[in-house]
Amino acid sequence: METFFNPLSVAIVGATEKPGSLPGIILKNLLSMGFKGKMYPVNPKYVTVFGLNCFPSILDIPDEIALTVIAIPAPLVLNVLLQQARKRIHHAIIISAGFREKGAEGIEMEERIRRVAIENDIRILGPNCLGVFDNYTNFTTSFLSWERVSLPKKGSLSILSQSGAFAIALLDLAAQEGLGIAKMINYGNRIDVGESALLPFLRDDVHTKVVAIYMESVDYGRRFIEAAKSCSKKKPIVALKVGRGAAGIAAAKSHTGAIAGNYAIYKAAFLKSGIIEAHGLEEFIDGVKALSMQNPPMGNRILIVTNGGGFGVIVADHCSENGLEVPPPSPQLKEKLGSKFSTFYVVNNPVDLTGSACDRDYHIALNACMIESDEYDAAIIIPIMAPQGMSEKIVDLIAETMKRSGKPAVICTVGGAFTMKIKRLFEEREFPVYPSPERSARAMSMLLKRRVLQESAERSAI
Amino acid sequence: METFFNPLSVAIVGATEKPGSLPGIILKNLLSMGFKGKMYPVNPKYVTVFGLNCFPSILDIPDEIALTVIAIPAPLVLNVLLQQARKRIHHAIIISAGFREKGAEGIEMEERIRRVAIENDIRILGPNCLGVFDNYTNFTTSFLSWERVSLPKKGSLSILSQSGAFAIALLDLAAQEGLGIAKMINYGNRIDVGESALLPFLRDDVHTKVVAIYMESVDYGRRFIEAAKSCSKKKPIVALKVGRGAAGIAAAKSHTGAIAGNYAIYKAAFLKSGIIEAHGLEEFIDGVKALSMQNPPMGNRILIVTNGGGFGVIVADHCSENGLEVPPPSPQLKEKLGSKFSTFYVVNNPVDLTGSACDRDYHIALNACMIESDEYDAAIIIPIMAPQGMSEKIVDLIAETMKRSGKPAVICTVGGAFTMKIKRLFEEREFPVYPSPERSARAMSMLLKRRVLQESAERSAI
Repeated sequence: METFFNPLSVAIVGATEKPGSLPGIILKNLLSMGFKGKMYPVNPKYVTVFGLNCFPSILDIPDEIALTVIAIPAPLVLNVLLQQARKRIHHAIIISAGFREKGAEGIEMEERIRRVAIENDIRILGPNCLGVFDNYTNFTTSFLSWERVSLPKKGSLSILSQSGAFAIALLDLAAQEGLGIAKMINYGNRIDVGESALLPFLRDDVHTKVVAIYMESVDYGRRFIEAAKSCSKKKPIVALKVGRGAAGIAAAKSHTGAIAGNYAIYKAAFLKSGIIEAHGLEEFIDGVKALSMQNPPMGNRILIVTNGGGFGVIVADHCSENGLEVPPPSPQLKEKLGSKFSTFYVVNNPVDLTGSACDRDYHIALNACMIESDEYDAAIIIPIMAPQGMSEKIVDLIAETMKRSGKPAVICTVGGAFTMKIKRLFEEREFPVYPSPERSARAMSMLLKRRVLQESAERSAI
Repeated sequence: METFFNPLSVAIVGATEKPGSLPGIILKNLLSMGFKGKMYPVNPKYVTVFGLNCFPSILDIPDEIALTVIAIPAPLVLNVLLQQARKRIHHAIIISAGFREKGAEGIEMEERIRRVAIENDIRILGPNCLGVFDNYTNFTTSFLSWERVSLPKKGSLSILSQSGAFAIALLDLAAQEGLGIAKMINYGNRIDVGESALLPFLRDDVHTKVVAIYMESVDYGRRFIEAAKSCSKKKPIVALKVGRGAAGIAAAKSHTGAIAGNYAIYKAAFLKSGIIEAHGLEEFIDGVKALSMQNPPMGNRILIVTNGGGFGVIVADHCSENGLEVPPPSPQLKEKLGSKFSTFYVVNNPVDLTGSACDRDYHIALNACMIESDEYDAAIIIPIMAPQGMSEKIVDLIAETMKRSGKPAVICTVGGAFTMKIKRLFEEREFPVYPSPERSARAMSMLLKRRVLQESAERSAI
């Protein structure tokens, strides 16, 4: 499997310098990302492409090739595969579309490719996909320009996605959310390598700490459950299953030829294999962000601290609706807090520091409730940045206090440009920030779900 | 009521030039926003404040005063009110906190103020509030600096909010979302003017086309329902009711002293009075954005057009889950579309233009489905901007085609900096853009809810 992410040598079939040519863009992306493996453009029309020696066919390459990248029209793919079989190249990423998703003729072509692959021991990613993106080896087969899509920083999230557009949008979003990425794999029609093969690989991948899966269908039911179960024991997996209702099932079929199947069966499989399910794009990205940045809480007692009382109320509502407790502080803790704060601060849960709050008040509240007392397992912190008492210093104050507490926190803050700056600073320190009360409560509940899954796995292991 | 938004003359009690003083910031904000009414700082310590003549007390002002703005410590408020009674000033905005929300003593102070107000025919907004913001008269009593909060453009949305932090965050968000604002009113503890008085006023306000209400509780049950019913006949009202569960109810009580009451009763009241309920901050802002920018659809048949197949699948799922139909095109329409597009485009619903789409393909699909045929009532359009075929031109192409169709559309697009630019361009043309499939489907369903309410109001009027 490693070969798909870090090939020693790769042939890019059909590469040209013409603008708009997919194999050309792939090669250009590899060059601009600084991929260190050997690259061999293959095209009978050219002697060099982007300064690299170009070969008329795969068979003309004098060196060993670990992987081919095939992004030429569908009817021409089979022939390339036959050539690579002769040269004993055991890995191919087929980018080309126009197979199963196009009906009978496409299915027929796909079947022929599958047979050739099996007979010649070739592992295939695709077709109808973007292939891979590896943020550590700088290898990618994406044919989208990095001028349009922001490159996320190195990190611990790996993404499996049946949809290419979705995978790329996630990379783009991750960059925006300060979320680090390890690998992205988009397998489209998935005639060979799919979730069941990739999950064991990601389980053992040193860079991956959290796995996100976008699925319309899975490759092999039972094998998938086993693979997911084994992976989720070590690392959280969050899945977005689409094609749930009739309209979505029909759309999935047109999209990747996927038979989205009975949603209830998927739900049961997720439960069985320790997968956390997300129900929309935002819950998905919010959950993996929380899991990538923070540890699961030891329990469900949540402290809410804010200087915007209304937001405290909304977060409290959404906590209740997401299975999180918002218990009031004990009389002793109330007294302690009361002695430190102005009388018009509301010493309860939420702790409402009011519009008069300054940065340090957050430290005081969190120190008393999360470090000096053991009444809460995690905090949802809602610094509203409009009042004058609030400054950038809030970021370090909250980050340091929470790190000392050893308990997780998520941040909710709502507002324009200044608030966005604060968001980035928090996320550089690995505190996930959400732009609405409901999303912060939901993200916290995703963290808690991971704890519950871990506990039930531990129990069943005894 | 008009006096609260456009006073001919206003006394700002306690105004100083000292940084951090609330009355001082209010006066500074009025000056910087270019408010055209007469302003009178009141403070025995100064002769001028920010270049304006300052008076020792209200009674020393030689001219008539329409409104007082009171932002001094709570125990001093009653005396100012007694003075303004002698000068026959019939309106006051009391910004000061420290009343009902602080317990018995605060309630007592509030009651005394209420009695003086009734005896002297003084209408009061507040206490414990930010007061008003009027984007057309440039009058505001907000004590937050506009350096921290972005000023939204002039528009048709008016906001009623019990929470000040929430009201300000909404203004900030509105600026970010390209959403135009008419008025914001935050009444905090609401000892006099509340929803029941403000809704009839907004019903008749020429600038207001959509009303958004954040509520922890309402002022007068029956009167509120009558006021809302009469307003919602003319203009959509969207409400976010907070304090729904036990934790939220407790938080609301600490926040504005509100008795949040039984949530089921609120739900029934919303239904009765034609209010559309939102369940979180995002649903709230997304709904009012859609209603401010687009008309309700005539039915629930939704066309989905995208160049990102996976997103089409997710939107289809969320349409089903929000009561929207995603019917396939008729054979005739399919044939027509098929004849215009490359064979690997998926001519169905969603129409999947694939990663090879260019801008014009969107025009072709929308023209055939929304103008030349009558099979759809509205469109959810999902332009994914990463592929090279997509450019800024998409904005005008979609906006013009949809305007010609006379049918509403919402846009979903996901991505980083380039996508954000496209979002702003769409929103300048009054097409609401959402950053996730679920939010675009939910916003469309809010538009549809408005249609359903209008129809049932028309039926009951017959």
